Amino acid sequence: MTVFTLEAHDGTARAGKLHTAHGDIETPVFMPVGTQAAVKAVSPDELIACDVHILLANAYHLYLRPGAQTIEAAGGLHRFMAWERAILTDSGGFQVFSLARLSRVDDDGYHFASHLDGSRHTFSPESVVALQEALGSDIAMVLDECAPAGIEESQARAAAERTLRWAERARRAVRRQDQLTFAIAQGSVFEPLRRLQCRALAGLDFPGYAIGGLWIGEPRPQSNAMVAVCCEELPQHKPRYLMGVGTPEDIVDSIALGADMFDSVYPTRCARHALALTSRGRLNLRNALHARDVRPLDESCGCLACARFSRAYIAHCFRAGEMLAARLVSIHNIAFLVGLARSARQAILAGGFTVWRERRLAEFADASAKDK
Amino acid sequence: MTVFTLEAHDGTARAGKLHTAHGDIETPVFMPVGTQAAVKAVSPDELIACDVHILLANAYHLYLRPGAQTIEAAGGLHRFMAWERAILTDSGGFQVFSLARLSRVDDDGYHFASHLDGSRHTFSPESVVALQEALGSDIAMVLDECAPAGIEESQARAAAERTLRWAERARRAVRRQDQLTFAIAQGSVFEPLRRLQCRALAGLDFPGYAIGGLWIGEPRPQSNAMVAVCCEELPQHKPRYLMGVGTPEDIVDSIALGADMFDSVYPTRCARHALALTSRGRLNLRNALHARDVRPLDESCGCLACARFSRAYIAHCFRAGEMLAARLVSIHNIAFLVGLARSARQAILAGGFTVWRERRLAEFADASAKDK
Repeated sequence: MTVFTLEAHDGTARAGKLHTAHGDIETPVFMPVGTQAAVKAVSPDELIACDVHILLANAYHLYLRPGAQTIEAAGGLHRFMAWERAILTDSGGFQVFSLARLSRVDDDGYHFASHLDGSRHTFSPESVVALQEALGSDIAMVLDECAPAGIEESQARAAAERTLRWAERARRAVRRQDQLTFAIAQGSVFEPLRRLQCRALAGLDFPGYAIGGLWIGEPRPQSNAMVAVCCEELPQHKPRYLMGVGTPEDIVDSIALGADMFDSVYPTRCARHALALTSRGRLNLRNALHARDVRPLDESCGCLACARFSRAYIAHCFRAGEMLAARLVSIHNIAFLVGLARSARQAILAGGFTVWRERRLAEFADASAKDK
Repeated sequence: MTVFTLEAHDGTARAGKLHTAHGDIETPVFMPVGTQAAVKAVSPDELIACDVHILLANAYHLYLRPGAQTIEAAGGLHRFMAWERAILTDSGGFQVFSLARLSRVDDDGYHFASHLDGSRHTFSPESVVALQEALGSDIAMVLDECAPAGIEESQARAAAERTLRWAERARRAVRRQDQLTFAIAQGSVFEPLRRLQCRALAGLDFPGYAIGGLWIGEPRPQSNAMVAVCCEELPQHKPRYLMGVGTPEDIVDSIALGADMFDSVYPTRCARHALALTSRGRLNLRNALHARDVRPLDESCGCLACARFSRAYIAHCFRAGEMLAARLVSIHNIAFLVGLARSARQAILAGGFTVWRERRLAEFADASAKDK
C-alpha cells in the first residue's frame, strides 16, 4: 500500500496525500490535539465542520486514564471518542519527560511514576507499540528520548542514539497492518546529529517520519535550521510531521521548509485565553474595543462561530464566565489553522506558494499590532 | 390576538399552546435558563436539537453586563445570542434580592448596588418594563417583591400588596405590542393571601401569570398547596408559569396541579456536577460503576449525547476535567426535561395523565436508588 503520494513541489514546500485506515489526509495539514481523547471544548461534529480530517491523542495520558483496557472494551479509540476520521497517537515519551516523576531512563525504556496517582510504570519501545495497537490509532509514534533545550552535544548524541535503537526495536514489534508507525528524529540543535539521525532512520524504512525535540525552548532560527536539515535528509516520498507546531507564522515557515504535518494545543489554549487567530492578526476578546463590535471574529471566515456570533457576544461570554466563549473561539481557531494549511496546499499546487506566504504573513503581522 | 389556546384538560392538568412573536409554544413546557444570554455549556443549535422552543434570560444580569445598549446595538437579544425562537426575560426582582447588595426597597422600586462592581442602580416597575422592551424578549415579567421563606403573614401581605401596585404600574408602562407581559403572584405560603393576590391580578387582565415566591426554602407540601390554590384562582384561559421549578418530580407534580410553564437551572447545574437525569433515575457519572459502561446515559433517549457517546466516555471526560463532559450531560438533561413535559402533554391530550404520572414517578424513584 502506498502510504504517501507526493502531489507537488513549490521550492521545498510540498503538497501530498497521506493514506490511512480512516481516510486520506491532504497535506500540508494541521492536526488539533485531543490529549485525553477530547479536543478541549470542541465536539467531534464541530471538528468535522472545521474540516478536520485527523487529530491527535496521547498514549501516555490514555494509558494512565481511562486505561487501554477501557478503550479496547469500548471498541477502540475511534468509537470511544466518537471520531470516525484518522487519529495519530503520540507515544508519550515527551509527556513522561515533562509531566511524570521520571525515576530512570535506560535502554529498557522509561521508569516513571504517574502524575495522577504516583503509581509506578515502565514504557519500553515494545510496550508503547502494543499500547497504541490496543488503542487502534491510525498513526502510532515510536518511543523516543527527547533531549531538553540547551543540552550539550554529547548528551544530545546519546539521546539520539538511544532513540535510534528504540526505533529499530519498535519497528520489529509492530503487529497491526492497519496502523502506520512513524519514527522520530532527535538530535537537538546539532546539524551533524540531525543529519546522521535522519539518514539512519531513513534506512529503517518507516512509513513516515517526525521531527521531534524542537520548539521546546531553543531560539527560533535554530529550530528552522534544524527543520531544513531534517527535510533535506528525510526520504522525499515519506510524510514529515513536525511535532508541536504551532503558531500561524511557524506553520507557514515550516511548510516552506518542507514539513507536511503539524500539531499543537495552540489554537485551543489561545481560545481559553480569549485570543482569536484571524487573517488580520490576533484579537484579544477581553479588549474593550470589541465589546460592541457586531462583526464576526474574522470577516473572511465561514466557521460555525463566525457564521452565527459577533465579537460583542463572544466578548460578553468571556466576561460572564460562560464556557461557550472558549468553545466558539476554539472552533474558530482550529478552523483558522486547518484552513491556513489547506490554503498553503492550494498555493503549492498552483505554484504560487512564495507570494502566498509573503502576503499571509504580512497581513497577519500588520493587523496584529492594532489589537495591542 | 389570542395569547393562549387551552387544548385539553385531564383532571387539573392542562395542555395548551402559547402564541409568541417567535413561534408557538406547546405546553406543558420546560424552559432552560440562559441567565447571561447563554445556556451554560450549550449552544443554540444544540438547544434546537433538544426541541427547546423557549428559553429564559435574566434582565437584571443583562442590564448590568453587557448592558441593554450593547444588546440593542446588536439588534436585540435574539440576534445577540443567535436564538431565533422565543425568549422569556425574568425581571430581576429575585436576583436583586439574592445577589445585589440591596440598600432599600420602597414603593418606587429597588435601590441596589451591582454584585459585579458595586455601582448604584434603581429598578422601578416602569424601568424594568422599558429594559425588557429594549432587550426585545417575547415574554417580559413584571417587577415583583419576592418575600423570603419563613416570613410573617403581615410581611408577606405587604410584599404581595406592593407586587400588586407594581403590576398595575407595569401594565400601564407597556409600549411594545409584540411582547407579552406576565404578572407574578406572591403571597408566600398563606392561602388567603395567594387567593386575594391571584384574583386581584386576574382583574388586571395580563396576557399570562406566573406563580412566584415558591421553591425558595419552604416545605414541599406547602409549595404544592400554594400551586394548587393559585391554579384555582388564576384565569383558566391564561398561561401559568411556575417560576424556578425544577426537578423531574416537581415538574410532574406541578403539571398535575395545573401549571403550564417551568424553568430551572437544575438540568445544567446537575450536569456540571456529573449528574444525569434519566428515565430510570439519576446517574452520578463519577460513580466507578459507569467507568466501563458502553451504554448511553439513557437507553430510551435520542439526544445528541446519547446518540454518540457512552457513559464510559462521559465518565472519563469528567475525570479528565474535559468541559465536553458538562456539555454532553447538559444537553442530555435539558432534552430529558423538555421531553418529560412533552410526554406529559401527550398523556394529557390522550386523557391518560394520571397513569402516566404514576408510572414515570415510580420508574424514576425506583432506579434512582440503585446508583447511590
